Amino acid sequence: MTTAVLAEDELSLTFAALADPTRRAILARLAGGEATVNELAAPFEMTGQAVSKHLKVLERAGLISRSRTAQYRPCRLEPAPLDAATDWITRYRRIWTDRLDGLERHLQTLRADRPVDPDHDGQDDR
Amino acid sequence: MTTAVLAEDELSLTFAALADPTRRAILARLAGGEATVNELAAPFEMTGQAVSKHLKVLERAGLISRSRTAQYRPCRLEPAPLDAATDWITRYRRIWTDRLDGLERHLQTLRADRPVDPDHDGQDDR
Repeated sequence: MTTAVLAEDELSLTFAALADPTRRAILARLAGGEATVNELAAPFEMTGQAVSKHLKVLERAGLISRSRTAQYRPCRLEPAPLDAATDWITRYRRIWTDRLDGLERHLQTLRADRPVDPDHDGQDDR
Repeated sequence: MTTAVLAEDELSLTFAALADPTRRAILARLAGGEATVNELAAPFEMTGQAVSKHLKVLERAGLISRSRTAQYRPCRLEPAPLDAATDWITRYRRIWTDRLDGLERHLQTLRADRPVDPDHDGQDDR
């Protein structure tokens, strides 16, 4: 129970962290490799402080980690929460698609059961 | 430019809508088929009003639609924003994986270039 609730909260943290274009741009940049705060701040008209705030949200969601050894503390992407997010979406997306497929198969069965006129070739007789 | 900004905002709306366990539970239920507000409220210790508030967030994000013809106005899942969300995540997840694969290939090349002792079978000589 506790684990399930924790997992729920982690998913909520992940989705909330992704719900901001600047934070998504930061993740997009980090997908290409580690970067320092200054490197991450460069493309935005934003103070280092504002970027640090976004990094804290990403770090709390487990989406990035920061080196504690190197003095310039580069940030790196952590993919596990991204995988949990796509796993959640994909799971329910599949249930939805399977249901539609089931409805379509049912329709085809109904069509197949309908009596067919053997002299009718499917074109209008004129 | 406007389109890109709009798309960005839509992604933010989608991720923000997903950042709540009750809203995810509602979407999970709707993946199995249409449901009315009362049916959606049943599993939660929540007023119909509280559920309606969550439905408005989901509707604004385009994740659900509500029938305007039937009087009981059933809700249904709309999968397009879910696909946009997984597309975004998968894209940057792939860049990250490709980069790691590239690093690994580079390491293997370095290993292959290292001169090998032909008399050495990889085990310690004792």
